Amino acid sequence: MRLARIAHPGGVAFAAVEGDGDDAQVLEIAEHPFGNPNFTGKRWPLADVRLLAPILPTKVVAIGRNYADHAAEMGNDVPTDPMMFLKPSTSVIGPNAAIKLPASSSHVDFEGELAVVIGQPVRNVPAARASAAVLGYTVANDVSARDHQKSDGQWGRAKGFDTFCPLGPWIETSIDASDLALRSQVDGETKQDSRTSLLVHKIPDLIEFVSGVMTLLPGDVILTGTPAGVGPITSDQDVAITIEGIGTLANPVQQA
Amino acid sequence: MRLARIAHPGGVAFAAVEGDGDDAQVLEIAEHPFGNPNFTGKRWPLADVRLLAPILPTKVVAIGRNYADHAAEMGNDVPTDPMMFLKPSTSVIGPNAAIKLPASSSHVDFEGELAVVIGQPVRNVPAARASAAVLGYTVANDVSARDHQKSDGQWGRAKGFDTFCPLGPWIETSIDASDLALRSQVDGETKQDSRTSLLVHKIPDLIEFVSGVMTLLPGDVILTGTPAGVGPITSDQDVAITIEGIGTLANPVQQA
Repeated sequence: MRLARIAHPGGVAFAAVEGDGDDAQVLEIAEHPFGNPNFTGKRWPLADVRLLAPILPTKVVAIGRNYADHAAEMGNDVPTDPMMFLKPSTSVIGPNAAIKLPASSSHVDFEGELAVVIGQPVRNVPAARASAAVLGYTVANDVSARDHQKSDGQWGRAKGFDTFCPLGPWIETSIDASDLALRSQVDGETKQDSRTSLLVHKIPDLIEFVSGVMTLLPGDVILTGTPAGVGPITSDQDVAITIEGIGTLANPVQQA
Repeated sequence: MRLARIAHPGGVAFAAVEGDGDDAQVLEIAEHPFGNPNFTGKRWPLADVRLLAPILPTKVVAIGRNYADHAAEMGNDVPTDPMMFLKPSTSVIGPNAAIKLPASSSHVDFEGELAVVIGQPVRNVPAARASAAVLGYTVANDVSARDHQKSDGQWGRAKGFDTFCPLGPWIETSIDASDLALRSQVDGETKQDSRTSLLVHKIPDLIEFVSGVMTLLPGDVILTGTPAGVGPITSDQDVAITIEGIGTLANPVQQA
């Protein structure tokens, strides 16, 4: 199932997306998308609603240097343990919302990533049982002010600006995410072209690691890291990240 | 006013704390403590309720190296811009709740800090108007697994474990926090003895800086940094942090 969050003529709701292209429809979910969602019976053509960030996480846990080629392009080694940092929930935006470039930075990069969305409260989940903790997968852009990242040491500012965590277009709940193509394009030009099979620390191991540190709550998001090919985005560009079997997360870029 | 969150015989509520010592009473607040809270008329002796973390923040923004003597004891310089990192909301516990030492770390430190609690949604607040964004001040312990902090580079793990952000005992809304004594004790022995006047980046400047990066929401917390004197805590110890005019945040320490 593809789970979305939508703005429709009567308000905001979770929804399931059915069909593709011009035939795609959204089916309104009564409450929340966890467990077996209840449908209200209302539906709209996908083209008649606006897609929002598919989830509002209580926390976004991001993993750094988790593709060897990206670690290398940044001049870093791959860490033995996953390198964890947090992005604030206020950085989350949905598809087609603008990434706002802060005036304080002169170098903002996109980073295309597979995002794991958690489906139930978990703590200390072993990797072998990690899949039960997963609601599904979506696409993320770990937008990063590279100049602040280098000068600050800690990445709270560089990766924490409002709009710096686009998520979407929806959460795919029925997919094996272990070997999916990931492609990032800026103004239609391909910049990242990789596969999730190249993740250094695999998804079940990341869930074990992160949940061994902190309780994960329904809707929390783990960003699994970005492959080589990151680069700057500037005002009036469009950045689009596509993950096979999920969809494309596209966002325009504007000066804040 | 001292704003607390309490577990009373009928449930959980925000409350105002009036009086001191054996005469202290808690007055139940109907909904939330922002703006002019409404009281239900119910009250209990403070001794008959359990104090919880006085707020459940959507995010905890922490500032590193913000006292020169602490930066020096760790072998670091004071950064020109505030160094920001995030602690997850799942790390928050209240007074007298146990700090749980993770098995993966052999060196966990306490860090006594003044915490600013935000009272309204703000973005890009100038320092001159920052005080209007503040609900009040409480006491925090930025518990840190020092070994993970050194080896990981990013501090998401070291400072993100469940129980690693004790807050309390309550939020003092009527205080000038610019020059308050801060004292941390482990098993009654004083380890930190400083004043908030020694903050490198002052509270209004921190609010301007952080809100220039990310929207701050009601209940969000800024940890202002820790002075010199940090040190390890071990199982069965008690750590108590006192800030003049606010109160004492005490927590036992246990192996997880």
